[in-house]
Amino acid sequence: MAVKLIEPTHVHSIEGIRLAAASAGIRYTGRDDVVLIEIAQQSNVAAVFTQNKFCAAPVTLSMAHLKDDTPRYLIINAGNANAGTGQLGMDAALATTKAVAHHMNVMPQQVLPFSTGVIGEVLDASKFENQLSTLSENLAEDHWLIAAKAIMTTDTVSKAYSKKINIAGKDVSVTGIAKGSGMIQPNMATMLSYVATDLAISSDTLQTLLSQVVSKSFNAITVDSDTSTNDACVLIATGGSQANYETLSIDEQNQFKQTLCWVMQMLAQAIVRDGEGATKFVSVRVEQASHFKQAKTVAYSVANSPLVKTALSASDPNWGRIMAAVGKCDDEDLQLSQASLSINGVSVMERGELAASYTEQVGKQAMQAEEIEIKIQLNLGEAQHTVWTTDLTHEYISINADYRS
Amino acid sequence: MAVKLIEPTHVHSIEGIRLAAASAGIRYTGRDDVVLIEIAQQSNVAAVFTQNKFCAAPVTLSMAHLKDDTPRYLIINAGNANAGTGQLGMDAALATTKAVAHHMNVMPQQVLPFSTGVIGEVLDASKFENQLSTLSENLAEDHWLIAAKAIMTTDTVSKAYSKKINIAGKDVSVTGIAKGSGMIQPNMATMLSYVATDLAISSDTLQTLLSQVVSKSFNAITVDSDTSTNDACVLIATGGSQANYETLSIDEQNQFKQTLCWVMQMLAQAIVRDGEGATKFVSVRVEQASHFKQAKTVAYSVANSPLVKTALSASDPNWGRIMAAVGKCDDEDLQLSQASLSINGVSVMERGELAASYTEQVGKQAMQAEEIEIKIQLNLGEAQHTVWTTDLTHEYISINADYRS
Repeated sequence: MAVKLIEPTHVHSIEGIRLAAASAGIRYTGRDDVVLIEIAQQSNVAAVFTQNKFCAAPVTLSMAHLKDDTPRYLIINAGNANAGTGQLGMDAALATTKAVAHHMNVMPQQVLPFSTGVIGEVLDASKFENQLSTLSENLAEDHWLIAAKAIMTTDTVSKAYSKKINIAGKDVSVTGIAKGSGMIQPNMATMLSYVATDLAISSDTLQTLLSQVVSKSFNAITVDSDTSTNDACVLIATGGSQANYETLSIDEQNQFKQTLCWVMQMLAQAIVRDGEGATKFVSVRVEQASHFKQAKTVAYSVANSPLVKTALSASDPNWGRIMAAVGKCDDEDLQLSQASLSINGVSVMERGELAASYTEQVGKQAMQAEEIEIKIQLNLGEAQHTVWTTDLTHEYISINADYRS
Repeated sequence: MAVKLIEPTHVHSIEGIRLAAASAGIRYTGRDDVVLIEIAQQSNVAAVFTQNKFCAAPVTLSMAHLKDDTPRYLIINAGNANAGTGQLGMDAALATTKAVAHHMNVMPQQVLPFSTGVIGEVLDASKFENQLSTLSENLAEDHWLIAAKAIMTTDTVSKAYSKKINIAGKDVSVTGIAKGSGMIQPNMATMLSYVATDLAISSDTLQTLLSQVVSKSFNAITVDSDTSTNDACVLIATGGSQANYETLSIDEQNQFKQTLCWVMQMLAQAIVRDGEGATKFVSVRVEQASHFKQAKTVAYSVANSPLVKTALSASDPNWGRIMAAVGKCDDEDLQLSQASLSINGVSVMERGELAASYTEQVGKQAMQAEEIEIKIQLNLGEAQHTVWTTDLTHEYISINADYRS
């Protein structure tokens, strides 16, 4: 049911990054479910993680390892989140990183573990260990798409985006993969996503860049308002292109930032397009807000409203539900008598009154599209924010009532 | 699909309150859809309204009228919310109250209008006027159940509760009706509810009592997290019993408060039991929180999680989703390593670890029940709160994708 989303067929390799996938039988059979990513020495790595306080053992351990050392290996599994598993979960995450470290001849704190899948089931670390030889033998620079497939859970399409630009006379690439489809409202993080560039970027700058871009990509999406226990986004700069971010001109730095932002926005939007049960891809754009937080609050209130989402699934221009979702925000400064609303360019409300040109007929027509932009102008200030979301369908209920069976 | 909810067959009349219903054809045919409630002189009236900033014209007008005078008449219609209708909506609300005032020989500001139904359609005030003779002729003290039926929209069962107690040698009754089924997460207010007692209560005390009880009843429920544009709860004290709240002993006052609270909780719970598509009635009880706001935030986070609600509909003991919904709350003080969880008395987590006695089998069995209590003990303090909610089903999607068609 993915909305205008097709399987990726090609991405640029990143010098300094090798990937491999294998079938460990953690939950699925007949498909890859573990991924090893090797990061060349001298690379820098930044990461953001879920803010969910019920976060998974691999999240806790990855955060600790990142403080201690620069990662050389990422080990990822799909099918089991290793969340809510208490001390047994932490033991499994530790055992996994130790096994990888031993096999690859690095320190355990140079390995970051990531898990995604069902919460609350104990992860069998020995299943990884059995695959370490296969994984290390198969490491290759052109295995991004294989890795993108291996980390999928309820995803119906794998997600990989890539762009090559020329900066300061050097070819510089940005390539990323992601997975995610349900339990999607990242909070200062994402579902699992791994993005790399061959530009050299210092560690501090890399973390700043990641935070800036995440706020406009993975932190601007929602499928069902539920924040995962396992979200993580890793950004790696290998320096393999021989170009260095710090010596670029401001214009060249902006060119790179735009490229990074494009890759991460495409990945984030791909998660929404592949949202569980989605039949619509919806942009909720809030303009003329007093401040950024207000724009974001209003956008998420509309994007998460079950009544707005069911109306979207029925292509019903029930705009009263949109305005009710704006109005329910806990924000004393909202003045809806001055607000305007349009749906795919069709003006519905103008400063609190029904637009003279609006008819049910034109509203219905606008709502038929697979891609919908809901634009709300608050007429209060200059701030703006866009959130991407899906509709809410029978298929979402079916997927989530049956996920574990 | 209402969960253990049956049509009410009898309530106690309240001396000083007369009601009538009629069929005005506002949206429905072949059923009553307007209600007139007459309040005897000397009564006091308190009310709370939706905090949605996109509130309906009748809400704005009722709030203004309440400041000016003590109401003598409430005029209520179902089928059209008169919300999002701009100046035309305010004109219709004003015309309605003027017509009632003229017919009943009171001042317009002594009439409060209430509407519930579809948002964004213009309300034809003349339809009320045609029914005023019928309504005034049919006013009677024993028409509570007729009124409860006439204010229904997507409700499948009408809602009325009543209790009689003896205080200070006098019989005192509390009787209330309510409607609501979707767009339910009242914020400092309710869906439409009208509660009356024949106890005499001063105006200030009445408003205080209403606020206290609403926080434990209508402000403790959610069906779909969407706050309506039209919520209102009115509490009337007629004094018809000849007993007076102010002269009661503390024990007698508490006895009355408990009775009032019982009636309003039963009405609030009835709205949840009749929640759109509901097959389960769910109590989310948070105990041992640091403070009330934390308990409430956690309870609503669980009660509104689409993933928790779909698991409930499938009777799937997917407790990881419950803990993830707790963990996603934006509250730095949450320490989930010390939290415990039980489902209908079955211990699932104890201080952050899976309970030794827990098996998938006992979890599944606990989740089969039509009434589920999810109890979360945070082990942080003494505060507690309970929120009532429903599961999320295919039927909810069907109802809300088709509501206007």
